[in-house]
Amino acid sequence: MRVIEDLWLIGIGTGSLSHITLEGVAALRAAQVILVPHKGAGKDDLADLRYQIIAASGTAAQIIPFDYPTRDPALPYDARVSDWHDEIARRWQSAMVRAEADGPVALLVWGDPSLYDSTLRIARRLDPVPRLRAVPGITAIQALTAAHAIALNTVNGPVHITTGRRLRAQGWPEGVETVVVLLDGEAGFQHLTEPRLDIWWGAYLGSPDQLLHHGTLSDVTQTIVDLRANARARHGWIMDTYLMRKRP
Amino acid sequence: MRVIEDLWLIGIGTGSLSHITLEGVAALRAAQVILVPHKGAGKDDLADLRYQIIAASGTAAQIIPFDYPTRDPALPYDARVSDWHDEIARRWQSAMVRAEADGPVALLVWGDPSLYDSTLRIARRLDPVPRLRAVPGITAIQALTAAHAIALNTVNGPVHITTGRRLRAQGWPEGVETVVVLLDGEAGFQHLTEPRLDIWWGAYLGSPDQLLHHGTLSDVTQTIVDLRANARARHGWIMDTYLMRKRP
Repeated sequence: MRVIEDLWLIGIGTGSLSHITLEGVAALRAAQVILVPHKGAGKDDLADLRYQIIAASGTAAQIIPFDYPTRDPALPYDARVSDWHDEIARRWQSAMVRAEADGPVALLVWGDPSLYDSTLRIARRLDPVPRLRAVPGITAIQALTAAHAIALNTVNGPVHITTGRRLRAQGWPEGVETVVVLLDGEAGFQHLTEPRLDIWWGAYLGSPDQLLHHGTLSDVTQTIVDLRANARARHGWIMDTYLMRKRP
Repeated sequence: MRVIEDLWLIGIGTGSLSHITLEGVAALRAAQVILVPHKGAGKDDLADLRYQIIAASGTAAQIIPFDYPTRDPALPYDARVSDWHDEIARRWQSAMVRAEADGPVALLVWGDPSLYDSTLRIARRLDPVPRLRAVPGITAIQALTAAHAIALNTVNGPVHITTGRRLRAQGWPEGVETVVVLLDGEAGFQHLTEPRLDIWWGAYLGSPDQLLHHGTLSDVTQTIVDLRANARARHGWIMDTYLMRKRP
């Protein structure tokens, strides 16, 4: 079994082949091994995109696919995530049985390795812990603001980034005018009662299937809820993101 | 005078030639004209980097330099910024006198066009307002987390992005564990009195001059203040960013 001495987490952006940076392409080309997760039937759109990015990079790295584990729904949330991360680290290590040479091992990370992604945390569960390199990638937040041609912040204004789970639990954060929500499988915006909110929403950002909508939240809530439901039925999955801003 | 019908704002990342995305390179190559600001003696490191990125892209676009205006220090803050933005828009338009052909006009934007950058707002002051396209780029926040190989957020945790000006005026934001500070010319972290804060700091991120430091805030404050002062004296300018997190 070869040990992973250098692990490179390469941000690949959000669904466009052209989101990757020149640094990301160079890292793919310099890697010796690339580990590619397979998530099972109906979820392999993302594996396909990984293979397209790898092929376009022209890398000669050895590609090693591995089956991604599923979370145990019987466990409470924290234990479920912790066990799952341990299992992912084990699968990376066992995939290395097939590695034909030593050298840097790469993983392609959706978006950017720093933002609502666990790969950095999982990597620190490897034994021994490898040298880690993170290559930044375009996030869904940037793909969203670019698609709408809007600024993330108001002049000198702060921005609050949160998850759907938090938004549902805590409502609109105190004293903030701009909120971006990620990882929201349940369209949490529809429960907000703040007045004078605008929303800019996007799904499948960066990809040919990209959907966009924006407007005064109370006016467009139902339209976005319907767009989401129809798109999810059509694709079998959805990833969406939205920015909300209070009008002065 | 040729009108700017299509204006492309291309994010170029934070100081590395390889931060640009494949989409950014393709946009530079497809542009007809590229406007490059010159900010005057001692501040043209950034113009040099722009020319290097343009040359590396292999574009055949016409390059038109223009002198960047300075802000009038006699005016109050809001009027000063507003007048300055009007003047920048006028300079873009007058630079177009030299354009030899119609077609998309590009501007290279430090970082990402959505994050603490005024180019989108200035573009909407043009008359007529052009069709705008934003191409995402790696932000200083992503360059910072990648350089330290850390996550931006804790598991399911929110992130608050703010400016040095806001941090000094308002202190640590209520109910937040992770704060990222940009545009802080005065090392605002040194005035915080919150206990149990860690800081990850970086300057000239992505460039060969990159500086990094991290630790418990109270332990490393003076070291970072000194690193900043020395680096600013050596380079004549500094751009730095930091992430702070409360320990549980």
